Amino acid sequence: MLNLSMYTLGAKRSCIRELFEYGRMRREIVGSENVFDFSLGNPSIPAPPEVNRAIRDLLATESSLQLHGYTTATGDLAARRAIADDLNSRFSAGIRPEDLFLGCGAAPELVSVIRALTLKSSEFLVIAPFFPEYRPFVESCGGRLEVVPADLPNFQIDFEALDRALNPRTQALILNSPNNPAGTVYSEQTLQILSGLLTEKSRLFGHPIYLISDEPYRELVYDGKTVPFVPNFYPDTIVCYSYSKSLSLPGERIGYICVPPNATDHDELLAAIAGAARSIGHVCAPSLMQKVIEKCAGVRPDLSRYDANRRLLADSLKSFGYEMASPDGAFYLFVKAPGGDSDAFSEKAKAKDLLIVPGTDFGCPEYFRLCYCVEPDMIQRSLPIFKQLIENA
Amino acid sequence: MLNLSMYTLGAKRSCIRELFEYGRMRREIVGSENVFDFSLGNPSIPAPPEVNRAIRDLLATESSLQLHGYTTATGDLAARRAIADDLNSRFSAGIRPEDLFLGCGAAPELVSVIRALTLKSSEFLVIAPFFPEYRPFVESCGGRLEVVPADLPNFQIDFEALDRALNPRTQALILNSPNNPAGTVYSEQTLQILSGLLTEKSRLFGHPIYLISDEPYRELVYDGKTVPFVPNFYPDTIVCYSYSKSLSLPGERIGYICVPPNATDHDELLAAIAGAARSIGHVCAPSLMQKVIEKCAGVRPDLSRYDANRRLLADSLKSFGYEMASPDGAFYLFVKAPGGDSDAFSEKAKAKDLLIVPGTDFGCPEYFRLCYCVEPDMIQRSLPIFKQLIENA
Repeated sequence: MLNLSMYTLGAKRSCIRELFEYGRMRREIVGSENVFDFSLGNPSIPAPPEVNRAIRDLLATESSLQLHGYTTATGDLAARRAIADDLNSRFSAGIRPEDLFLGCGAAPELVSVIRALTLKSSEFLVIAPFFPEYRPFVESCGGRLEVVPADLPNFQIDFEALDRALNPRTQALILNSPNNPAGTVYSEQTLQILSGLLTEKSRLFGHPIYLISDEPYRELVYDGKTVPFVPNFYPDTIVCYSYSKSLSLPGERIGYICVPPNATDHDELLAAIAGAARSIGHVCAPSLMQKVIEKCAGVRPDLSRYDANRRLLADSLKSFGYEMASPDGAFYLFVKAPGGDSDAFSEKAKAKDLLIVPGTDFGCPEYFRLCYCVEPDMIQRSLPIFKQLIENA
Repeated sequence: MLNLSMYTLGAKRSCIRELFEYGRMRREIVGSENVFDFSLGNPSIPAPPEVNRAIRDLLATESSLQLHGYTTATGDLAARRAIADDLNSRFSAGIRPEDLFLGCGAAPELVSVIRALTLKSSEFLVIAPFFPEYRPFVESCGGRLEVVPADLPNFQIDFEALDRALNPRTQALILNSPNNPAGTVYSEQTLQILSGLLTEKSRLFGHPIYLISDEPYRELVYDGKTVPFVPNFYPDTIVCYSYSKSLSLPGERIGYICVPPNATDHDELLAAIAGAARSIGHVCAPSLMQKVIEKCAGVRPDLSRYDANRRLLADSLKSFGYEMASPDGAFYLFVKAPGGDSDAFSEKAKAKDLLIVPGTDFGCPEYFRLCYCVEPDMIQRSLPIFKQLIENA
């Protein structure tokens, strides 16, 4: 007498969690220096010092009721103002505090947005490779997830495939750049073509097709590259942001939804998002963290450690003969499995206690994912195994 | 092309919020000393000093990655152990850490539990008066909310009405004690009869009828009374707890779900709850607050200020001739509207800038709710108006 889909979702660990738990078990048996765990996308750099300084200052200056009390469901005005100021100073985005809704991280923000947009038989498109949790988010709202095949080997967008997938039931396209798992960034040119296509199809179908831009990795980008601000290319964009990665606060559950001023049905859309959030139990984002964001909205992470890991791993693997997606952002490498079957390759690696995530659940079974938010030392020790695996493939 | 129910839920402010905003507007016009706002159940006592002390200690001793990193979805083991120890020391409850799931406050916890229990055409019973948000929580999961009429004037349970309401589609009964809005506590006797009835009906219908015990007010009880621990009366109880009121942390979104060891389908139920939580975007409860709870699970609030307010307001109103539910817990008085129509009475009060919430949305239109988590001074100044209102009724 339990809901079977919910039971299945809770009982079945994700492939990533499964690997991570396996790694924990193996460490106890063979010693942690002999396990090479690249499975989990968990920030490995501390929060910038401004964060804990902000918490200390707040404890010293604000009353308990101010600090720990309810805010409105949309979030503290001062925090929303600080976020808008930061976005406007970087992207000339014209965002107002009333365009922002503070949420408990990207996951419930995405669910709220998807729920607000789900009518009977609505479809949501994702571009492979994609974050697997999009599927339960969409399906639990009653929508259908449709996958647009990957654009190999560039990991931009296969527009012919997208064109074929778009139809009158398409309510939104979920975009994730820098991408988990590919580590790639959608270029300005990609966003321009995408905007043109969505504008045309929206007109054709007589309703807006929203872009849901899932951006937890926005500030994680290397080699002087930049991540374009999607609403500047397509006004019907809904941004779901999280500070999990940019401020290394994944456990604190703080982020925002942004509906830019000239999005179609702006006010109604925000109301529907607020209603959807309310229906899944949103009351407000964690209040102390809202006040931290007010003080730290302009703080950027020090990426030097991720960058050093990225170079070490990417350069070494390339020198062994591995091919991979261009590692421009996030903290992932997406590497072509020698032989082309990432499940089989991942099993071979697992036998040597090298834990990598096959791309199958991401919609891209030829590639595997490596998280380089790890200790540099572990990367060094893992290199001979990577070399051996490709030589024996 | 938006989901109409979500839009309606977001666009339509609750009656309580509406009143609160009205009060804010009136304060600007007539001065805050002339507005008597009893609308919002927002804690007015600071968090116990142990809370901020714990945060300071954690900042001084724990690494950023430990403090702000992801925990498992079920929550940090040390925090769950501390909660189990506290429950066991007070209620001999036999709770183990693996019976607990840390959540972001009672609202998303309730949604996760309801979602885990919702099959096609499932029904959830509530006892009037009830917290109005139960309705969107149940309906957004696809269930039906059925209201059992209030047991007037005792505000226990009308068991004949409950007996009539129970049917094979009943998946659970949502119980809230100390009660919002009535301020009453269900007695041991009530829980014993309830347990007998639910056990009998579960057997008759061939499936467990769970009790969902929504307990944000559990520690708020006066006059030396105690709140019975519901799972000790009925093993198929699922507790949804929040530290919002007991530690005055409503903005921080921290609480837990407890499924006691001998609940029917214990493991499957917890898996379904975890799956439901995942489907609405739960990743983990706020990590810093999890660590605070590890240190503060045994801390109790100092209720002297609420208690003084409660006595002042209850005694004065009784002396004017008002009748009310026994004000044993929470921070609400539930008062019979002179004339019997709380909407009309609330309008009359509003005209004198006395803001009280009619009981209509709570399923009890003859009564109105007063929140006494306010400044004592405001209570004093409001008394002549209460007197006048009943004299002129």
